[in-house]
Amino acid sequence: MNPILAMIDLKALIEARDFNTLREQAKNWSAGDLAELMEPLPVEQEAIVFRLLPRDQAADVFSYLSDERQDELLKAMAREDVAAILNAMDPDDRTSLLEEMPATVVQHLLSMLSVEERRVASQLLGYEEDSVGRLMTTDFVRVRPHWKISHALEHIRRYGKDSETMSMIYVIDDENRLVDDLRIRQLLLAKPDELISDLMDSRYVSLKATDNREAAVDLMKKADLPALPVTDTRDILIGIVTVDDVFDVAEEEATEDIQKMGGSEALDEPYMKIAISKMVQKRATWLIILFISEMLTATAMGRFENEIAKAVVLSIFVPLVISSGGNSGSQASTLIIRAMALGEVGLTDWWRVMRREFLSGLSLGGILGVIGFFRIILWHYLFNAYGEHWLLIALTVGIALIGIVLWGSLSGSMLPFFLRRVGLDPATSSAPFVATLVDVSGLIIYFTVAAVILKGTLL
Amino acid sequence: MNPILAMIDLKALIEARDFNTLREQAKNWSAGDLAELMEPLPVEQEAIVFRLLPRDQAADVFSYLSDERQDELLKAMAREDVAAILNAMDPDDRTSLLEEMPATVVQHLLSMLSVEERRVASQLLGYEEDSVGRLMTTDFVRVRPHWKISHALEHIRRYGKDSETMSMIYVIDDENRLVDDLRIRQLLLAKPDELISDLMDSRYVSLKATDNREAAVDLMKKADLPALPVTDTRDILIGIVTVDDVFDVAEEEATEDIQKMGGSEALDEPYMKIAISKMVQKRATWLIILFISEMLTATAMGRFENEIAKAVVLSIFVPLVISSGGNSGSQASTLIIRAMALGEVGLTDWWRVMRREFLSGLSLGGILGVIGFFRIILWHYLFNAYGEHWLLIALTVGIALIGIVLWGSLSGSMLPFFLRRVGLDPATSSAPFVATLVDVSGLIIYFTVAAVILKGTLL
Repeated sequence: MNPILAMIDLKALIEARDFNTLREQAKNWSAGDLAELMEPLPVEQEAIVFRLLPRDQAADVFSYLSDERQDELLKAMAREDVAAILNAMDPDDRTSLLEEMPATVVQHLLSMLSVEERRVASQLLGYEEDSVGRLMTTDFVRVRPHWKISHALEHIRRYGKDSETMSMIYVIDDENRLVDDLRIRQLLLAKPDELISDLMDSRYVSLKATDNREAAVDLMKKADLPALPVTDTRDILIGIVTVDDVFDVAEEEATEDIQKMGGSEALDEPYMKIAISKMVQKRATWLIILFISEMLTATAMGRFENEIAKAVVLSIFVPLVISSGGNSGSQASTLIIRAMALGEVGLTDWWRVMRREFLSGLSLGGILGVIGFFRIILWHYLFNAYGEHWLLIALTVGIALIGIVLWGSLSGSMLPFFLRRVGLDPATSSAPFVATLVDVSGLIIYFTVAAVILKGTLL
Repeated sequence: MNPILAMIDLKALIEARDFNTLREQAKNWSAGDLAELMEPLPVEQEAIVFRLLPRDQAADVFSYLSDERQDELLKAMAREDVAAILNAMDPDDRTSLLEEMPATVVQHLLSMLSVEERRVASQLLGYEEDSVGRLMTTDFVRVRPHWKISHALEHIRRYGKDSETMSMIYVIDDENRLVDDLRIRQLLLAKPDELISDLMDSRYVSLKATDNREAAVDLMKKADLPALPVTDTRDILIGIVTVDDVFDVAEEEATEDIQKMGGSEALDEPYMKIAISKMVQKRATWLIILFISEMLTATAMGRFENEIAKAVVLSIFVPLVISSGGNSGSQASTLIIRAMALGEVGLTDWWRVMRREFLSGLSLGGILGVIGFFRIILWHYLFNAYGEHWLLIALTVGIALIGIVLWGSLSGSMLPFFLRRVGLDPATSSAPFVATLVDVSGLIIYFTVAAVILKGTLL
């Protein structure tokens, strides 16, 4: 092999963005050759070649580099231009070419970078936007099973300075695989000449770096620990997430849910800081979707134009009747979405929820129906407001309300199940969406009830 | 003083619920006398007398009791019947008679009771339902400034077993007042013969037991600590709250906000567990309030009955037009409420928010107005749906939409400020409430625009 030629090849392949060929070619070279070949490349190209290597080969090449070159390489991986090139890859290519990085590299990379650099570099690790990998830190305390407590405490005293938390100590085996977690209290309460292995029960919980960060929230709630260990796919301990980071995640998730339930996309930025144009864009999408769906009400109303012409009084109660359906629907969907987010309600509970909402909707509809009925009768006696067929109108409104509120509760509670079943976020704009859905169907219920009750009199 | 007479007095006063006189009389006796006088009383009466003593006297009397009698007394304070008697007091009396309990008693009480008993007893401590006092635990590690590190670690080894967390160690002075907090790492990293005072910087954050628990969430977020110390009004350290408890509180608060924003009272129980009757009650209250407010739409529509009779086509667009106002209003109020809950927006920001919402509302209204305008024109060409004045109708709907969406955004964003200004929770049912408000005003805007544009043609 001619190194000069190979170098030209590498450069040319990177500039042509022909990453598939580059990766294929790299397979033919030894780790030592590769380390040598990469040396003369500009540092941002070196980082790209390195990132494209298969996992095991990357680990080998990395160990061939001097300490300074390791640092240089990792620093380069936090550069925006390097990130930009790799991010511009076709998603399919990304998945097939960018394997998980070796644990040694991950730890090294994360520990030497600032928070800001880490944000850029973490994309390169191949962890998704909302993954545990993006959340973790690598400053933690590791001990070995055969150590004495006194040695472990001395180790902590010496190397623990930068550790994010000392509440939890992690036990790893010879291959750096996680084998147990210990609370610092266990070490403090133990006798100095006991062994770490005497304290171990090999029961621990852990996260994978590729897990969704919501998994961290769930596990943290269940485990009641100040920190959780994160491993790669080979169980090698590569980081921890601390409770305060998870706390922030839980809060962001709640904010996103609330904003989506309020009928806009999640803003992802504080209200006072986001540019107005960006905010309008995020809000407009759903307003337009809702507006276009709501156009069905005009179609529905159009169908009943003759009835309205004959009995204008019916149109007077349209906003009252349909908004009641919307309100009961929003209520039901909000309760279910939150219960789902808290894990109180799962997909398989739909039938039990439906039964509960049937009873609730019927009761609530009954209450509003009775109030509406007497409101019309009262106005008749006070103002003689609704002509000679006032009693039939009162009956129409009352019965329609029962049907509409029941329908609102049922569809409001079932929509989140449906959204989740088809793989969407149940919070997505569901309250206003339910309101729109129930507006249209509410009109149909209302005018159908009217047609039955008022036939031969007003209609 | 005749002890027998005094004893009869005490019994009689308790049975007559004459707590004012009891407290007045108790002032005349020494702590030793009182301890003796209370001995023959049934234990539940003893607890009541004790709870009514002024703070300092209670501390004195407590120290006069033997260990067993102290335990007996505190156990009695967790009894439902004792709690019931004190809870039945007039709120004014409660405030004036039930002072904060002495720190020694609080610590003793909380540490000896089960979680369930604590729930009962904590009412007796006089801490409000949502206060930090209800949240705290008393199992924590205290050290003194003049101790050596080695002595402190030995102390932790010996007495730390039950401590809720060992991540934070608290330094107290001779009067048990909090003077600093230390992370366990500081002790672990220090040399054994250094003094605690060498590590102290006297900078610490703390909560009062009477603080609202939301204060704990806020402080925990800012301080990034695994636990926060809780003091009584005299700065005596009486407990800690740990991050996982605060985590739960933050989640409960978010759930309450979400449920309120969805237009019901907070359920306070998991959806699947709450009795249906109770859930209906919590949901009915707001549905009825919204329903009765929404009746104003019937009144508003009634005013325009003549216009509707002349131009039935106008009624067709009523649901579309008013729901757009409702949706934009819910959006705006949701965003503001969440921003308030996160502390991103304060009361004084109302003017800046109004300016932002003016621009957003105008843009969003413009977008929907244009879509609505062309929808009507399209339907005219496709179905000849709206008679000869289709262009004027399209103009009416388009212009009304701009006004209504703008109005929805403005009122939706200002309502939370108003609710908070008058001391209410901004989350209270605001999204549906805004929708209702905007429904009524939306009708007026719509028919007013129609009156101006269609005058001389349809109207």
